[in-house]
Amino acid sequence: MGKTQNIKLAVDAVVFGYQNNQLYVLLIKQRFGIAKGLWSLPGGFVLNNESLTQAVERELHEEAGIKVNYLEQLYTFGDDVKRDTRNHTVSVAYFALVNPTKWTLKADTDAEDAQWFPITKIPKLAYDHNKIVKVGIERLKGKLTYQPIGFDLLDKEFPFSDLEHLYTTILGKEIDRRNFRKKMLSFDILQETNKMKKVGSGRPAKLFTFNKQKYNALVKDGFHFEIKYV
Amino acid sequence: MGKTQNIKLAVDAVVFGYQNNQLYVLLIKQRFGIAKGLWSLPGGFVLNNESLTQAVERELHEEAGIKVNYLEQLYTFGDDVKRDTRNHTVSVAYFALVNPTKWTLKADTDAEDAQWFPITKIPKLAYDHNKIVKVGIERLKGKLTYQPIGFDLLDKEFPFSDLEHLYTTILGKEIDRRNFRKKMLSFDILQETNKMKKVGSGRPAKLFTFNKQKYNALVKDGFHFEIKYV
Repeated sequence: MGKTQNIKLAVDAVVFGYQNNQLYVLLIKQRFGIAKGLWSLPGGFVLNNESLTQAVERELHEEAGIKVNYLEQLYTFGDDVKRDTRNHTVSVAYFALVNPTKWTLKADTDAEDAQWFPITKIPKLAYDHNKIVKVGIERLKGKLTYQPIGFDLLDKEFPFSDLEHLYTTILGKEIDRRNFRKKMLSFDILQETNKMKKVGSGRPAKLFTFNKQKYNALVKDGFHFEIKYV
Repeated sequence: MGKTQNIKLAVDAVVFGYQNNQLYVLLIKQRFGIAKGLWSLPGGFVLNNESLTQAVERELHEEAGIKVNYLEQLYTFGDDVKRDTRNHTVSVAYFALVNPTKWTLKADTDAEDAQWFPITKIPKLAYDHNKIVKVGIERLKGKLTYQPIGFDLLDKEFPFSDLEHLYTTILGKEIDRRNFRKKMLSFDILQETNKMKKVGSGRPAKLFTFNKQKYNALVKDGFHFEIKYV
């Protein structure tokens, strides 16, 4: 049975970036094939001797010239056997985050162009990629509340207000600022630096960093990060 | 590039069943191939015109003669390119639950035998299936706390103590019985029936059913099921 299987396996990535209080997703313009000229998620067929993770990292490097901060599997799309009209193609979609230092894109190989699109302005994408983006956004919203992944979208050192804006922007709702700050600091996973940064017209704000070692140690002891209902 | 791809696509299922305060996983004994005689998860190659969900439902029917109550994607295993020594094979693993009315198994096709194994007594399985089972158990433990999936493992009508035992057994820890009952009933998703059942040596206990319509309506209004820290 396996011998005659004619199903292609692809990987695609929903890569999120965040700047100036706006959430972005990385899209590439297809240079070849049936989706030529259309915007789509970066991705492509898995090579024979490649792991799925290697495939998605290679595609992100080739098509957009970037390396992500955070990568995890999102969902495997294979219930619509016509999602690619050429051939039954199953796509293992990944969810990725990059921070502003890796913001610069460089389109190459199958990509004619690579750009960050605000998630409020995503065009009609090739294949079922609009659906995949939607699933990615849901995952991001969910994860923000129970895993400290927001830090992967921020500069290494950030004023506290950046973290607060990131939550309000992505979750799309107001939060109680005082509760949020109290709760976030109570976890003891943020470290104050000696540096200050001028934010807007206010006085300079202290910069923080996320202490990942500390977080990992806490998790081993049963700690659960949770930013719900703030 | 797609033309020469030589990667096989399979589905596998981690099916959980629960009886007499014990959690079980469904295993089949391989009749053919390199894993002949070994126990493994039910599953197999996806057919060309089949969706992933159809493939896993077909395999469960063929190899074990069952239809599950609950099915969702678990994870796609494809980072170890040698997980099947014959050919690079990527497996989309599913997570499934069955209740006692569907407990009877019937091995056929690729399966020489099909049996329920207590999760404390799982043998060395074919391929990387022990790892997949482990991921399935983690998913089950996690989901029990934020989704009312425990009901898919119980009889349609059950004494409250069965639900309580299910949580303590699967989560592997004692719970505060009084808090658990109070919280579970406060959600207003359990419906009392007029029936009673004798449990152990005590007096007959009232039977409950899970009101799924009610739950779905509550979710639409923003309700979050949560059984943590009880």
